[in-house]
Amino acid sequence: MKAAVLFKTGEPLQIIDGIKVPTLTKGQVHVRVIYSGLCHSQVMEVKGGRGEDKYLPHLLGHEGVGIVESIGEGVTKVQPGDKVIIGWIKGEGLDAPGGKYPHKDYLINSGSATTLTDQTIVAENRLVKLPSGFPEKLAILLGCALPTGLGLVLNELKPEKHKTIAIFGLGGIGMSALLAAKLSNPTSLIAIDVNEDKLKLAKQFGATHCINSSTCDPVQEIYRLTEQTGVDYSLEAGGTTTTIEQAFESVRDGGGQCIFASHPSNELKIQLEPHAFHRGKYIRGSWGGGSQPDKDIPLFADMYFKGDLNLEPLISKEYTLDGINEAIDDLENQKIVRALITL
Amino acid sequence: MKAAVLFKTGEPLQIIDGIKVPTLTKGQVHVRVIYSGLCHSQVMEVKGGRGEDKYLPHLLGHEGVGIVESIGEGVTKVQPGDKVIIGWIKGEGLDAPGGKYPHKDYLINSGSATTLTDQTIVAENRLVKLPSGFPEKLAILLGCALPTGLGLVLNELKPEKHKTIAIFGLGGIGMSALLAAKLSNPTSLIAIDVNEDKLKLAKQFGATHCINSSTCDPVQEIYRLTEQTGVDYSLEAGGTTTTIEQAFESVRDGGGQCIFASHPSNELKIQLEPHAFHRGKYIRGSWGGGSQPDKDIPLFADMYFKGDLNLEPLISKEYTLDGINEAIDDLENQKIVRALITL
Repeated sequence: MKAAVLFKTGEPLQIIDGIKVPTLTKGQVHVRVIYSGLCHSQVMEVKGGRGEDKYLPHLLGHEGVGIVESIGEGVTKVQPGDKVIIGWIKGEGLDAPGGKYPHKDYLINSGSATTLTDQTIVAENRLVKLPSGFPEKLAILLGCALPTGLGLVLNELKPEKHKTIAIFGLGGIGMSALLAAKLSNPTSLIAIDVNEDKLKLAKQFGATHCINSSTCDPVQEIYRLTEQTGVDYSLEAGGTTTTIEQAFESVRDGGGQCIFASHPSNELKIQLEPHAFHRGKYIRGSWGGGSQPDKDIPLFADMYFKGDLNLEPLISKEYTLDGINEAIDDLENQKIVRALITL
Repeated sequence: MKAAVLFKTGEPLQIIDGIKVPTLTKGQVHVRVIYSGLCHSQVMEVKGGRGEDKYLPHLLGHEGVGIVESIGEGVTKVQPGDKVIIGWIKGEGLDAPGGKYPHKDYLINSGSATTLTDQTIVAENRLVKLPSGFPEKLAILLGCALPTGLGLVLNELKPEKHKTIAIFGLGGIGMSALLAAKLSNPTSLIAIDVNEDKLKLAKQFGATHCINSSTCDPVQEIYRLTEQTGVDYSLEAGGTTTTIEQAFESVRDGGGQCIFASHPSNELKIQLEPHAFHRGKYIRGSWGGGSQPDKDIPLFADMYFKGDLNLEPLISKEYTLDGINEAIDDLENQKIVRALITL
């Protein structure tokens, strides 16, 4: 098998061929990966933003689509030949550790779901069957961006109809959140990013206002757009402590709610004004959009089939596994929404 | 009339006699004050912790008990001769500005409720009739500490029975919160303060564990006491950003809830780990314990009459108005729970 391997944080991934697929243990599933996505979480891992990495060398990637090759003891949810979505959010089925892949004189570690590899050992509970007829390339979005971004809105925030909503950060999660937020018919749907192409796409997706936060203070601009009250809801997926802080500041006193998905570098903290809490601003973090993959992935697929989700524009660019480091750079530099890696 | 007046932040209050009581306008009530309490908020005002003070010189104090002298146009809730509780939390009745008190060649400002004065002009909506039979000295607690501290628990947090609870800061609000928390029969009720006398009182009030945070890291100690899980709930009234941060860190992942009452200096921010939100810790601020004075003060008084609230020990020390600066110092230096000022 061939995989992108992280040997040292801060250095590019190395493409290693000829890795052996280990024998399956209980709860594990061997999957041939077709496509993988790439999430800001991988950028953080590669760049060392998760602190000391105790599992080097290891595989990575946490959203993909593939075909089951074989199943380990106890696995009943999928069978060889099934097309499956691989994701990081735990669902039904057995939990299991990732594979330890032998190569030369060392082992390559992996978590319970990895996808930047042409073959992978995945825990049964990180797999959901691909809904019939769902396009394979778009299916990578069902592994992370859609459960998190749609779930953030539909499972966790549950906005009332006809409110004002701001979305900070238009990557895969932010764009998915925007698609879901639009369904609540907000009176204002304000999209914030530093990239003009993403803002154009947000407009196409139904944003009523777009703010380029590289050219102004987005908080001031949101207050200007809302007659100085702030928005009812803010959704954050911008990846930094600053975007989380701005999202919190942007909600109105007396009940404004901020929810954030970003997980900035481990050593960083968000700095919030205590009195803003007393004035009735709320903030919470999202954990995978509160999604239960087995229940929610079929629902989200149905939304796509019904035409509620225009997902095609979310896949900005395709790369091969050999181009993985370019994809990571493009994602880090905010050039793309979501990368598609073809295995 | 005689009052404590703030002329310059950072300087002691001046006791001024011979101030004139202005004519009442719509919604205002003239009250002869019997007792006033003293809250950490006044310490912050006097020391300049609320930023630039645009209303100097002004009266202060926001919890007290007194007798109505006369009522302004439109006032129907109270009549001359009524004993009333004065508090800062808005209730029913007309809102109105505080009085502007003429003295020599200048005016002394005041907010809608002030109590560090032997006579005061109060808005109708900051007054509630003193429940019959309720001790006058303890009644000052009904103006701020009890609505906030009891309300924090009973109106806002609503803890489930038999959970673990930590309380940071044992002033009037923290002690009141402790009394209310005890009613949920927590399996552990952990009290944290820097003052041994307050910790002893907390023990007497039913705390199962006491932590002197001047001699150890209270967060570590809480994790030690809870088999490294953290508490289900933390209530904070310690007055600093550090106590708010500690209270947040002390709640368990997967649903632990922190609520804080403190309002540190305006320029300070609390620093929180974003990933703690993803792991399922929650934090919110309290606004006057979510109390509605007209509904809640009679309820809280009933709890006292039924013997659920041992309030006497909360009044640590009595002062005259001439001793107000000593009282402020004692409160700032954590020597007392609540001061009683006799007018």
